[in-house]
Amino acid sequence: MADGDDDVPLILTWDDASSGLLEEDENGAGNYDIVNNVVIPTPGAPDPRAQNSLRQSWEMNYQEAAIYLQEGENNDKFFTHPRSAHALSAYLFAHNHLFYVMELLTAVLLMLLSLSEAPAVPFLRLDVYIHATLELLALALVAFELGMKLRWLGFRTFIQHKRTMVKTCVLFLQFIEAIVVLVRQTSHLRVTRALRPIFLVDCRYCGAVRRNLRQIFQSLPPFIDILLLLLFFMVIFAILGFCLFSANPADPYFSTLENSIVSLFVLLTTANFPDVMMPAYSKNRWSCIFFIVYLSIELYFIMNLLLAVVFDTFNGVEKMKFKSLLLHKRSAIEHAFQLLVSRQRPDGVSLKQFDGLMRFYRPRMTARDRFLTFKALNYSGATMLSLQEFYKFYEVIGLKWKARRSGEYWFDDLPRTAFLIFKGINLLVKSKAFQYAMYLVVAINGIWILVETNMLNDGVSWTHVVPWSYIVFLTIYGIEVLLKLTGLGPMTYFSSGWNLFDFSVTVFAFLGLIALAFDMEPFYFIVVLRPLQLLRLFKIKQRYRNVLDTMFELFPRMASLGLTLIIFYYSFAIVGMEFFAGVVYPNCCSNSTVADSYRQINVTIGNRTVLEEGYYYLNNFNNILSSFVTLFELTVVNNWYITMEGVTSETTHWTRLYFMTFYIVTMVVMTIIVAFILDAFVFRMNYSRKNREPLDDPEDEKGIVFETEVSQTEALQTLDLYKHTLGVTNLSSLQEMCVALERSGHSSLVFQGRRSRTKSDLSMKMYEEEIQEWYEEYSRTNLQPDEAFHRELDSPEANASNSIN
Amino acid sequence: MADGDDDVPLILTWDDASSGLLEEDENGAGNYDIVNNVVIPTPGAPDPRAQNSLRQSWEMNYQEAAIYLQEGENNDKFFTHPRSAHALSAYLFAHNHLFYVMELLTAVLLMLLSLSEAPAVPFLRLDVYIHATLELLALALVAFELGMKLRWLGFRTFIQHKRTMVKTCVLFLQFIEAIVVLVRQTSHLRVTRALRPIFLVDCRYCGAVRRNLRQIFQSLPPFIDILLLLLFFMVIFAILGFCLFSANPADPYFSTLENSIVSLFVLLTTANFPDVMMPAYSKNRWSCIFFIVYLSIELYFIMNLLLAVVFDTFNGVEKMKFKSLLLHKRSAIEHAFQLLVSRQRPDGVSLKQFDGLMRFYRPRMTARDRFLTFKALNYSGATMLSLQEFYKFYEVIGLKWKARRSGEYWFDDLPRTAFLIFKGINLLVKSKAFQYAMYLVVAINGIWILVETNMLNDGVSWTHVVPWSYIVFLTIYGIEVLLKLTGLGPMTYFSSGWNLFDFSVTVFAFLGLIALAFDMEPFYFIVVLRPLQLLRLFKIKQRYRNVLDTMFELFPRMASLGLTLIIFYYSFAIVGMEFFAGVVYPNCCSNSTVADSYRQINVTIGNRTVLEEGYYYLNNFNNILSSFVTLFELTVVNNWYITMEGVTSETTHWTRLYFMTFYIVTMVVMTIIVAFILDAFVFRMNYSRKNREPLDDPEDEKGIVFETEVSQTEALQTLDLYKHTLGVTNLSSLQEMCVALERSGHSSLVFQGRRSRTKSDLSMKMYEEEIQEWYEEYSRTNLQPDEAFHRELDSPEANASNSIN
Repeated sequence: MADGDDDVPLILTWDDASSGLLEEDENGAGNYDIVNNVVIPTPGAPDPRAQNSLRQSWEMNYQEAAIYLQEGENNDKFFTHPRSAHALSAYLFAHNHLFYVMELLTAVLLMLLSLSEAPAVPFLRLDVYIHATLELLALALVAFELGMKLRWLGFRTFIQHKRTMVKTCVLFLQFIEAIVVLVRQTSHLRVTRALRPIFLVDCRYCGAVRRNLRQIFQSLPPFIDILLLLLFFMVIFAILGFCLFSANPADPYFSTLENSIVSLFVLLTTANFPDVMMPAYSKNRWSCIFFIVYLSIELYFIMNLLLAVVFDTFNGVEKMKFKSLLLHKRSAIEHAFQLLVSRQRPDGVSLKQFDGLMRFYRPRMTARDRFLTFKALNYSGATMLSLQEFYKFYEVIGLKWKARRSGEYWFDDLPRTAFLIFKGINLLVKSKAFQYAMYLVVAINGIWILVETNMLNDGVSWTHVVPWSYIVFLTIYGIEVLLKLTGLGPMTYFSSGWNLFDFSVTVFAFLGLIALAFDMEPFYFIVVLRPLQLLRLFKIKQRYRNVLDTMFELFPRMASLGLTLIIFYYSFAIVGMEFFAGVVYPNCCSNSTVADSYRQINVTIGNRTVLEEGYYYLNNFNNILSSFVTLFELTVVNNWYITMEGVTSETTHWTRLYFMTFYIVTMVVMTIIVAFILDAFVFRMNYSRKNREPLDDPEDEKGIVFETEVSQTEALQTLDLYKHTLGVTNLSSLQEMCVALERSGHSSLVFQGRRSRTKSDLSMKMYEEEIQEWYEEYSRTNLQPDEAFHRELDSPEANASNSIN
Repeated sequence: MADGDDDVPLILTWDDASSGLLEEDENGAGNYDIVNNVVIPTPGAPDPRAQNSLRQSWEMNYQEAAIYLQEGENNDKFFTHPRSAHALSAYLFAHNHLFYVMELLTAVLLMLLSLSEAPAVPFLRLDVYIHATLELLALALVAFELGMKLRWLGFRTFIQHKRTMVKTCVLFLQFIEAIVVLVRQTSHLRVTRALRPIFLVDCRYCGAVRRNLRQIFQSLPPFIDILLLLLFFMVIFAILGFCLFSANPADPYFSTLENSIVSLFVLLTTANFPDVMMPAYSKNRWSCIFFIVYLSIELYFIMNLLLAVVFDTFNGVEKMKFKSLLLHKRSAIEHAFQLLVSRQRPDGVSLKQFDGLMRFYRPRMTARDRFLTFKALNYSGATMLSLQEFYKFYEVIGLKWKARRSGEYWFDDLPRTAFLIFKGINLLVKSKAFQYAMYLVVAINGIWILVETNMLNDGVSWTHVVPWSYIVFLTIYGIEVLLKLTGLGPMTYFSSGWNLFDFSVTVFAFLGLIALAFDMEPFYFIVVLRPLQLLRLFKIKQRYRNVLDTMFELFPRMASLGLTLIIFYYSFAIVGMEFFAGVVYPNCCSNSTVADSYRQINVTIGNRTVLEEGYYYLNNFNNILSSFVTLFELTVVNNWYITMEGVTSETTHWTRLYFMTFYIVTMVVMTIIVAFILDAFVFRMNYSRKNREPLDDPEDEKGIVFETEVSQTEALQTLDLYKHTLGVTNLSSLQEMCVALERSGHSSLVFQGRRSRTKSDLSMKMYEEEIQEWYEEYSRTNLQPDEAFHRELDSPEANASNSIN
């Protein structure tokens, strides 16, 4: 290979490595001068000790480059980059999956504690000393995590990092409160428990939630503006309504100005319509105009405007987020590149250095894959990677490498007869006729289920007899799955999401059959999932495939939005429990307007006696699970004022503030969810329109594919290089490659690297032109990374501060 | 001017004009040969009779060109273009505002009849023979209108025109039914009255409604696709719910499969949540998962997807609509251009011909404005308008021309003292301090009103005493209006929408004061409008100005969407009245689940007696006004199932189909309204982002401005031309211009033409690049207009058919 052993890094990282080299220099045996942390080779023969020290300093460089690339990938800001050797060890300790899992579990444990703290879920109730001790334990763990962070960041960066400081303060508060609880052996009013989700949000694995929260906060200013307009109209109409309707004694909704405002706030959610109109309407039919105008302005105009404004902001924020991520990655790549080039050849990264980097960046990657990744990056064919080539780092890093198969089918290597049989099956399952026949079966099955269910009109009797239709259809589905599995081969079969869906529904149906046959009561619900099979019918039409694919694509983001919502729920649930636990019960709230919904009593109407059951006492804050259900009901909004008025009548009228705040918060989150779905869908549509190709065409299903050709001589050379020069021990993957090359009989072999397409790839294609502009703007105005390096190279102060930290 | 009197049109239009010329030829006195409708001048001296005939044929050309341009403006298709002289007279009869107004009034009368037909609004009830006679009269008018159309279009085109054929069929049906009613002297089940809005939709003035309907129908296919997905999940969950909950006798919502489906359909609208969950939830707390999953999928995902799909389609449809309008206009201009050029100079339109056109196209336009419009188009400065210049026709046609004022203020010409006073006032009202002082006053006024109203907590007593605060604030507002009026001059003052708003609110407040002072009870509501003054506070922030400006801009479109909705309401109201009039009344529906909402009876609870008032019997279909209110309540959706179940319990369960269909129809219209608001707002935001200028900057408020300079000699020449050559009689405007030029002492005068900016102008700017592409594509592929002309010129058959039609 082109780079010899005597290459010296352009930049030396971290003080101890450079001090090692300096030591050599002091002994006078080295061939290098170190000026301002930059190694300058002096002529002369290589010395083994100097070489050893050089190797160590390269290793340090690889590690730091790997850390830069990780920071680029995770969008960690560079000012939290470890600056010294002991910061590095803390950094490495705090950056691995074990630590992340611990962090997550601690946070989840802390949140779950509210299941057991009073007011607890009945069957999970724990004694005060148990849950307080658990809490202290968890908090101690959090404190330990923060300690590691302090060690890694240094004190100054630590107190500059806002999120960490907030976390520290909350931790301190919770600690004190937990101790107080333990000492008093009873829980006091602990509203601060509502802050617990902060620990969860700060977890490494909850990055998506953090991003959602940031997006919510970024969308807030325009949202609040429009909200004020909304509330302004509400107050104007409240004054108007009070003036118009307060004279009517039968109208409780507008009797005072406060009632007017509350009524119109609830009307904004439509929850009390048309009841709120009825007393006025029964007195004067024209009064409906007031309500129609109010709803037209508020509900149909300003509420939609709210969505429009959020959607517009969201659009912009998404693009900016993508831009900043992209430029951050670019900057990380530049940092890493500078650390990987040698003094002798400052324009390129050799395989040796790339391999060194990858051993830190992806320790599990095989030597063959590291080599193939290098080849994939190195599209110019030169021996070194240029910076331009290295910019593609993040695009190729996730590729899974495989030798391109010479044959088409998995059964190519089988004997002739078997091949023909499988080939026949393959042709069968790929034929249109087979597909449509299956659609027909599914459709018939659907109608069957509908008719069957409709005939059970007197309630479902769990007869424990398996109906024959169930067996027939299941057999057909089973045969289909088997045919497809054998015809396409398991790899091809399971690579399609639709097939996976078919497979799992069929397997569930079989489990249901077994449950039915063996009388396992709790598994009956599986039987009921049968109609899901019908979802396959939607594969027929392009639009449905698009919609359902979008649905699957959106799922991770939706899940993180759901988690964000749950975090808001948690905080509100804690506050609700602290203030409203146990305030509603059957037959409470008798002096409120919603007494009916809580009444559970025999009522005499005329001469009949009826049991009136008002179930609303179930919508309470008695424990965290009930609170969540209640809050979900409040989110759906319909009849939410019944819960609000019930609780209000048993507490003070300030309680309404809690409910109204909750409504506004969920409105924000829900609007963002709608904006997100709109944005994702419109983006996808625009994408497929721009590229004039439907997104689900087979090309696309493969995802991103890179191909690279390896010749026999190249493979042997590389093996040699790895064995002798790099000293890598685990070379089985490379050796296998060489063997495969020899066996194939060809002089070269093509390897394919695949990965699934991500939103980032789509964005790259969508914003193609803009990305070029961004890059130019970035390299024109934002010279930070280069500047930083030059400063490190040139100025003695920077060098000094580097070794002090 | 350049064109002499002996110019001959390139194309001759309509047979009688050319036959006039042919006659001349037969007499042998003409100087022209006519070959295939094209006039070829033969050498020789001009003959006065030939000249007269030539002038006539030019007039015919001007008229047809004007008709083409009108068709371009109104987006009428060219296949309805009048093809012969008597078609022309029918066309002219049917295309003027008197005829349009008659058309509109007839349609409105027909629709209003349902106020008086049984079941009528009590105080508008008419006898059968009166309303049936009125209806026959209106239908006869419609028949007359259709007759005119038949005459103008010709039989073949008439039966090809779908909308007209539908109208004819409906007319025929209505005629028969009206006669039957008159003969039987009683109304039968007349569901066909629901078709009456067709007459309204077909009116010239309801073009916006037609466009909306077209847009709704275009958005339907993707909408229906997603709707099917929605309904599919609904049915699956209904089966699931039936299996899970039908065993619970206390749960009426899932007792049969039909009930399950209806419950989940209603749950889709959230109207029965959380009640629908409560029986199952009280039995098993985990059953809430079923409802949460259902709502998450259906309400929060698929419903939003529906919006996304409609929004996406809407976006595309809006752009395509703009494109087709633009190209249609271009084509109309090309048609007109061909008719205006002469055989001698086929590349340009001279002022003479342009003036001739304009006399037909805008009969009310003064000679000066016609001249200035020509100058504005003629930016190359040549004597003739090229086709490229003529393409701008629609951009300049709406301009209002005025000589540019030399001074800045309206009081420039006043004496020195007055000037200084007004100048002072001008500076004052333009100062920031004045504006903020006014904001402060408005804010204080707002707080005052709130406090005052809050203190009237025991209901408003109409004390007939004017509160002093009212007078104080009103005086301040009055002074402000006066100051602004005098400082800015009425023209400048009223040109701002915000000032207009201030002015009208202040005037209304004065009227309220007078009403208070003179005890005019019915005008009290004006007093209540005072808080609207507060809306001015929103002027402070850029975003609010944007939002409110968008609101004003959207208003016309919103109004037309509202009208579209009312048309749907009308049809549903008629059907509702025919089937459900009088079915609900107090204490009806006692055997339904919603009996409570209709109950009006003393109820004994424990040992207390309470009057329970269920007002829902008011939501009925007893007359068209009540029906409209009921349908609005159904649109708002909350508690709509109470009305549905009430009516269902008194009729059959098929009634639900009516309500569900109505829900789906309003869902379509509402989704389109949301998509429209989103689109309009996002469009506006993108526009102002693209042009890096806020839309409300003063430049923009002026709208579109064209300037053209007229020199004294040019003015005199033009006057001369008009007087002698064109024989135009009303030249006062041109003479005034000459006088003004002389008086000003300058050798030339600049005239400014202004018009307000329309959505089309914004679109032009937004789609700048795409428009060029469209034009190229249009001239490349769609050679129809030119081809058509060449065909008319070249082929004898085309010519023959032209003279036959």
